[in-house]
Order: sequence, then structure tokens, then C-alpha cells
Amino acid sequence: MIIGKVVGTVICTRKNPKLVGNKFLIVDPMEKMKGYVGDRIVAVDDVGAGIHDIVLVSTGSAARMACDVTTSPVDACIVGIVDDPNKIVIVEQ
Amino acid sequence: MIIGKVVGTVICTRKNPKLVGNKFLIVDPMEKMKGYVGDRIVAVDDVGAGIHDIVLVSTGSAARMACDVTTSPVDACIVGIVDDPNKIVIVEQ
Amino acid sequence: MIIGKVVGTVICTRKNPKLVGNKFLIVDPMEKMKGYVGDRIVAVDDVGAGIHDIVLVSTGSAARMACDVTTSPVDACIVGIVDDPNKIVIVEQ
Amino acid sequence: MIIGKVVGTVICTRKNPKLVGNKFLIVDPMEKMKGYVGDRIVAVDDVGAGIHDIVLVSTGSAARMACDVTTSPVDACIVGIVDDPNKIVIVEQ
Amino acid sequence: MIIGKVVGTVICTRKNPKLVGNKFLIVDPMEKMKGYVGDRIVAVDDVGAGIHDIVLVSTGSAARMACDVTTSPVDACIVGIVDDPNKIVIVEQ
Repeated sequence: MIIGKVVGTVICTRKNPKLVGNKFLIVDPMEKMKGYVGDRIVAVDDVGAGIHDIVLVSTGSAARMACDVTTSPVDACIVGIVDDPNKIVIVEQ
Repeated sequence: MIIGKVVGTVICTRKNPKLVGNKFLIVDPMEKMKGYVGDRIVAVDDVGAGIHDIVLVSTGSAARMACDVTTSPVDACIVGIVDDPNKIVIVEQ
Repeated sequence: MIIGKVVGTVICTRKNPKLVGNKFLIVDPMEKMKGYVGDRIVAVDDVGAGIHDIVLVSTGSAARMACDVTTSPVDACIVGIVDDPNKIVIVEQ
Repeated sequence: MIIGKVVGTVICTRKNPKLVGNKFLIVDPMEKMKGYVGDRIVAVDDVGAGIHDIVLVSTGSAARMACDVTTSPVDACIVGIVDDPNKIVIVEQ
Repeated sequence: MIIGKVVGTVICTRKNPKLVGNKFLIVDPMEKMKGYVGDRIVAVDDVGAGIHDIVLVSTGSAARMACDVTTSPVDACIVGIVDDPNKIVIVEQ
């Protein structure tokens, strides 16, 4: 899973029927996680996240497992909201 | 999922039988999404997208879930058309 | 899917039994597809491709779907041969 | 699988129900493994790893296979603890 | 699949029960395959490979298909040994 920040939303009226009712959030991988920061991704929200939340995102087939419909064409899903980003313990060398 | 722009098409007469009837579009990941822009990918179209449309693309096994035939050898599928690219809300720092 | 050019072959006499009978081709992702060109990959051939052909390659679990044996340990498969590489329509900006 | 070092923890009270009870560790891919070092990832712990342990991490759908609940929305799982990192044999050219 | 060279081994006494009996080899993607050389990965051995062998590695869910136990939490597996690395035919431009 990756940790990222919710930075935006995107709306698609015309979409795959299995995606109706899903909320799409744009997630920015956290810089704190390392030098190379990946691309922003669009993730379905499973836990009620909002703009500025720091979230845990599952990608790949794991994302489907978090959806109510496990045949949903979803490849990224927010599966948790980090309690306190300042309390992410990272033990530097 | 990633957001990208449909920039082209590609035709394969000789192909896997399960792919017959599919439309292949070339999608360019959107620059707005971040500095590192991924490679162009070829995605099957599930929602009637056309050249210049801004689309939502599912990749990996999720793409198959969007196809009528879920055993289709497809690893990228356009699952939504973004309503208004200018309304993609991205909250900068 | 990605578009690439078949640039070579590789032979493995000692291999997983499920791979016996497969032809392994080395595919070079097409430069035309964008600046960052991915690594060469070894793909199983499903459509009778040959050296210099421009092909459509499915990766990940999608590749297995193109094999006769869907439990084959294959992560890349050539699923189509591009009719005419010069006719790949790419609408620049 | 990749080899990495456990460098931190992250806590999510609000999370997908299937993730309740999981411990989330932040893993840093080992520099010894090569020049390009990937991003830190968040992995579920399956073997009782702790901070500073050198661990073996499975990613993608393989991670789910290591969980008690194979429908868990998990895309990275610590599946082993390296006995002695100094005894990782790497035969240089 | 990728082509790589076996450069090392790694031992984990404490590991997921499904991994007991597996041999873990460290594989270095071959430079001959292109400029950008990926990270070293740890792959399970399915074909009796040894240090210095040039091998074919399947990644992702395909790796599980090569294991005796298809629910093994394995994301990379050596599925073939290249007969003669000098006979890898690569047709340059």
C-alpha cells in the first residue's frame, strides 16, 4: 500500500455501469515516503476520505477486494485514513 | 486509475480471437497529473470515447472486469469519460 | 497494452512444464509511444508474430488469458500484430 | 519479492473492515539491492517483523495469498525475515 | 517475462508457512536487455537454477502459476534457464 494525500476529485457521468455510485479522488503519494514520488492516481474511496486527508491506498487487484462489488473495474482504492500523519514513525538510519 | 487523453488509434487485423470487436485507443497520461508522465498505453474502449476525450483508465486485472468477456487478454480499459477536464479539482499545497 | 517491435528470440530447454511449446520473443517498446521507453520484455507469441513485426502486447495477468492454458506462468503475451505501423494515428497536441 | 528494511509504522483507525487487526509497517527497499531504490511501501506483517528487521516482501496479488483472509485488500505483505543480512550472498560480476 | 542473471541467495528461517521449502535467488535483470535496468528481485526457483545462470523470470500473479501451490505468496519465479545467453538473438535496428 502507499500513503498519499487526497488532493482532488474527478467526475465522470459516462462510465462503466459497475462504477456508478463510486467517488473518485485524486491522491498524491506523500513526499515523506521517499525521494521518487510516483504519479498522482485516481482512487475509489471506501472509507469516507476527504480533501487533505492522509490515506492508505491499495493498488492493483487488491483494490477490488475493498469494493462491495469485487468485479468492479477498479485498480486503486482508499482503504484507510491515517490517524495522525505526524505520528507516522519513520526510523531514519 | 489514471487520467489521460485519447490521442490515437491502432488497428490489428491479426489478433487474439477474444479481442475481436474491441476498439484500441492510444491514451496519453495527463500532464496535469504530475511531473513524471507515464508511457502512452493502448486501452480498450468501454464507454464510447473518442479522440481528444479526457478519460479514466483502469489498468491491470481491473481492466478485464470492465470487458464483457472477463477472460479477455486486456490490461487497460477506458472506464469513464471525464465530464469537464477544467473541473478536475486539484487542491495545491 | 503496449505497442512494441519484435527484436529477438530466446530459447530455454529447461523450463516450467506449462511453458513447453511456447515461443519466446523479445519485444522492444516503440519509441513513437513516448520519451520514456520501457525495458525490453520477453513475451509469449499467440498470433504468429515474427522478427520486425510491430505487435500489441498484453502484460500482467491479462497475458495468461491469451494462452490456451490459463494457468500458464506467463506475464506478457503478444495478442495482436499491428496492420500498418505508419497508420497508427497519433493526434499531437 | 523485494528485500527491504522495516523503518516505521502507520496507524489507521478508520479503515476497511477486512484490514482490522492488521499491523502496517513501512518498508524501505534495501540499497544493497541496486542503484535505483524504489519507493517506501506500506506492507502488512505476516511473520512478526519489527523495526530494523530486514524482510522479504511480496507485492501485488501475491500479498493476499499470505493473509489469513485471501480477499483482504492488501497489495504488499512481509512474508519472511532475513536471517542475517550480512549473509545475503551477492556474487558481483 | 524478463531475462536476468542469478547473482545471489537469501535465507529466511522465519517465513510464511506456504514458502517453506522454497529456494530464494536474487536475480539481476540483464543489461543487454536495455539501458534502464530494473531493480534486483528475489525470485523463487522452479527449474533448478544456480548462481551465474541466465534465467527467464515471470513476475506478478504469473509467478504463482509456476509454483506447486498456486496460493503461494510468490510474486517472481524463475521459469526457465536460457540455453546459451550468447545465442539470444537481438536484431538491432
